[in-house]
Amino acid sequence: MPWLKLETSSYLTGVTMNCSWVQKVKLPPPELKDNTADADRLIQALKSRLGTGDIALDLDLLKILPDILRNADYHIRCALYRDRGGWGISGVLPAEDPAPVLGMAVDLGTTRVELRLVDLADGRNLAESSFDNPQLAVGPDILTRIHHADTQEGLNHLQALIVEGLNREMSALCASCGAAATDIFLMAVAGNTAMTHLFMGLNPRWIIREPYIPVVNRPGTHRASELGLCANPGARVFVFPNIGSYFGGDLIAGILYSGLNQREETAILVDVGTNAEVVLGNKHWMIACAGAAGPALEGGAARMGMMAGPGVIDRVAIHPETHQMDIHTIEDLAPVGICGSGLIDLAAQLFLRGMLDIRGKFVASRCGSRLKEIDGLKHLVVVDQKTSATGSDLSISQADIDSLIRSKAAMYTILETLTASVGMGPRDLTRFYVAGTFGSFINPVSAISIGMIPDLGLDCYQTLGNSSLGGAARILESSDLFEEVVRIQGSITYLELNVNQDFMNRFSAAKFLPHTDPSLFPSVKKTGDR
Amino acid sequence: MPWLKLETSSYLTGVTMNCSWVQKVKLPPPELKDNTADADRLIQALKSRLGTGDIALDLDLLKILPDILRNADYHIRCALYRDRGGWGISGVLPAEDPAPVLGMAVDLGTTRVELRLVDLADGRNLAESSFDNPQLAVGPDILTRIHHADTQEGLNHLQALIVEGLNREMSALCASCGAAATDIFLMAVAGNTAMTHLFMGLNPRWIIREPYIPVVNRPGTHRASELGLCANPGARVFVFPNIGSYFGGDLIAGILYSGLNQREETAILVDVGTNAEVVLGNKHWMIACAGAAGPALEGGAARMGMMAGPGVIDRVAIHPETHQMDIHTIEDLAPVGICGSGLIDLAAQLFLRGMLDIRGKFVASRCGSRLKEIDGLKHLVVVDQKTSATGSDLSISQADIDSLIRSKAAMYTILETLTASVGMGPRDLTRFYVAGTFGSFINPVSAISIGMIPDLGLDCYQTLGNSSLGGAARILESSDLFEEVVRIQGSITYLELNVNQDFMNRFSAAKFLPHTDPSLFPSVKKTGDR
Repeated sequence: MPWLKLETSSYLTGVTMNCSWVQKVKLPPPELKDNTADADRLIQALKSRLGTGDIALDLDLLKILPDILRNADYHIRCALYRDRGGWGISGVLPAEDPAPVLGMAVDLGTTRVELRLVDLADGRNLAESSFDNPQLAVGPDILTRIHHADTQEGLNHLQALIVEGLNREMSALCASCGAAATDIFLMAVAGNTAMTHLFMGLNPRWIIREPYIPVVNRPGTHRASELGLCANPGARVFVFPNIGSYFGGDLIAGILYSGLNQREETAILVDVGTNAEVVLGNKHWMIACAGAAGPALEGGAARMGMMAGPGVIDRVAIHPETHQMDIHTIEDLAPVGICGSGLIDLAAQLFLRGMLDIRGKFVASRCGSRLKEIDGLKHLVVVDQKTSATGSDLSISQADIDSLIRSKAAMYTILETLTASVGMGPRDLTRFYVAGTFGSFINPVSAISIGMIPDLGLDCYQTLGNSSLGGAARILESSDLFEEVVRIQGSITYLELNVNQDFMNRFSAAKFLPHTDPSLFPSVKKTGDR
Repeated sequence: MPWLKLETSSYLTGVTMNCSWVQKVKLPPPELKDNTADADRLIQALKSRLGTGDIALDLDLLKILPDILRNADYHIRCALYRDRGGWGISGVLPAEDPAPVLGMAVDLGTTRVELRLVDLADGRNLAESSFDNPQLAVGPDILTRIHHADTQEGLNHLQALIVEGLNREMSALCASCGAAATDIFLMAVAGNTAMTHLFMGLNPRWIIREPYIPVVNRPGTHRASELGLCANPGARVFVFPNIGSYFGGDLIAGILYSGLNQREETAILVDVGTNAEVVLGNKHWMIACAGAAGPALEGGAARMGMMAGPGVIDRVAIHPETHQMDIHTIEDLAPVGICGSGLIDLAAQLFLRGMLDIRGKFVASRCGSRLKEIDGLKHLVVVDQKTSATGSDLSISQADIDSLIRSKAAMYTILETLTASVGMGPRDLTRFYVAGTFGSFINPVSAISIGMIPDLGLDCYQTLGNSSLGGAARILESSDLFEEVVRIQGSITYLELNVNQDFMNRFSAAKFLPHTDPSLFPSVKKTGDR
């Protein structure tokens, strides 16, 4: 992959661990001249350490505090959390106790849920795992789930599915490190707005109905036990805020992870998917929007399209002379279908070799015998039945290509509209972050070739991988970043995409390969052009 | 009673109801141009109304908020609470819903628990009631209960007793006003430090062991449900802070109720009982101490002593010439014993009539036939067997008088020591607040006559009644006072009573009637002196 990868380690160099979520303190033992109560003694020490106002302490913790302090000789470790303006203590352990104090970062994906276990004492990442979102059993798309949640039983069912899934995975992940889920004192959860609602048991009904109102934009910090999670009884769960129904906490986490919010120069961050979510800005301002790009970019629309998995075509090259297709499948198995990144590769290669014209139509003279007509629609055979794992031809239709072009045009138009709103053009950008796991698999050269993303130097592009998980984990690495999340959420101006004549004009111009205005894509050279 | 009573109404004149715990707000309904989430829309409106930072919202409330807002057309009432630095929402109701939003003030007395129901919308007091502390079944004194709480079962038992008692009484009190306990959204609870611990389920073990450390000085605000209370599921309980093991939340509430903390002139507040708790100060500073006065002042030590109740002698006068005793009993029944206020009256009258000398010894020549010797100890018959309800003489022994004198001397010495610590004498005071129900029944002229309290003009004395309940109720009347409680707790300097030679010298001097230095008590004139 030619993407530049964001190096976690280089970013972390700037993070001091002064503000760990675990503070080790040695309290002066009580005496007649200083008979401050146990809890107040602890809070005072932490207040001066953290330079903060008052600190909350749960009733359950108050009940066991005197024994913990005396048994540990007043030398203890405190697990902390933040909730809106304030701080709180989620656990108190003897300083010398070997039990770890863990944090769990969660990316609550619609399809896949990813977890990372973090040592809260030093911010070290300990282990990672992922599992299919158990809500897939109700419906693969979020809309089906939102409708299922319309009854209280449906909502409870969906919440139970995700919470039980998390509990299983958290226990297993902790066990793999010789720890227990009850060693988790802080969780940071990032997901899109609807997933966040389902996770919290909030009815997402109004998210999909005009004027598209979430129950909450800043869900805040809640007790893990209230959410049914099997972490420590005192543990807290910070849920990433959203900007609205279509710009979720996963993107806020992505911004935090990218560092866009701390750069002097303006950059853009794009999450490519069925919805294109984009944020443009720098340390001073941020503007965001989200719009439908359709499922084609993820391979969802094509007949041979499917999610990435063993045997799925993820890379395609076409020989300039012979037009021989060089396909790569995941795990090098016999091909079963094509995923989004493979489809973008395929379209780019077809266009560059002259097999697709500027309108995205198959060029019969160049496609040769690969072009077939099925049910009156042109199909290009990518893998013939002898080579495919399915026993049938794997082919892509003109309709599949048309759908992909509409999606890439929507994506480009959204980028263009957002940059234009601040008087910039897409090519003025010097940094382009690609958020999300899916984005990491796209070949930027191919995406540029079809005019899906602007024609910037490849060193401008930076892939973030699972930036939602990365941002959630970053919160656990240092308490300093808590306020930064609040600041990011508060400083983003959300631009409601107005699908007016201007937008439609831009969209029409973008429905060509790479664009009606080829000067916008100077690097794109067709084989025939050379 | 010649005490001046603090008029609740006059104090309240200064309280504006701008900061009611119930805020009625009409939110702008959501639209495409303003798609702020439901919760954030509500919080924004309240933030600007209250001029505060962020406001917390429980998960359970988030779950039902969208329906409440839509059904009420975004015109709602919010029940609020404060917790340390922050604010929170405990309930959201339609603006036009007739259901009341109630507050419950509780004075958690060791012997008697008193409740007052308050309308949180306008601070109106609705009803009051009281019940015997069900923990009396375990032991009448707090020390027995603290020992009982040494095991987890014992602690649970004591907590269950008080919480179940409160639940019964709260339900009955609400029902008497046509409301339900679930209409209670905020509670304010004041009690001594040990009672507060038992109520919260905190082990009070270290309170009575050197160096006398409570679990917590500022217990803060907790969910009623966590404490097992039957108020609204979202309701919060604010527990008054203490200054230490022997200066509890009941006294902090008393200070708030008295207004001592807002006066320019220095005043003193005294809670008379087995322990004498005293605070001296003004709006700029406060200094407090507590010391043992013994049970004699409350009538607890005398053989005929008992708690106030029907047939108990509460007032005594002795005719200057005939030495005829004019006794008053509660409910005018045949006498059964004597309570603290009656005992102080009796001792003062005996001294003023020359029947007790300056050392507090019976003067045989003046006592006449009333003086008897039983088991080698002098007894003065107060009520003979023909008149008493018990069929036996009700008499007071020399030992009872000695005990009372030690107690009154301890009380006076504590007052003298505290005032001396800031360079004042007891007679420099211009305002002397008597806190607590018991104090209200003492005749100040009698208390001055025996040298228990300084010889100030009677208009200096002001009785507060149940100032602990009054202070707790005041918190519910206006949210403004919440911070004042924090300020009071934070601005009190606790003076550890050092029983050194200096203290013992003062104590010895105070063990005379009224004092070795009669010039300190110029108003005290014995009959014989006239």
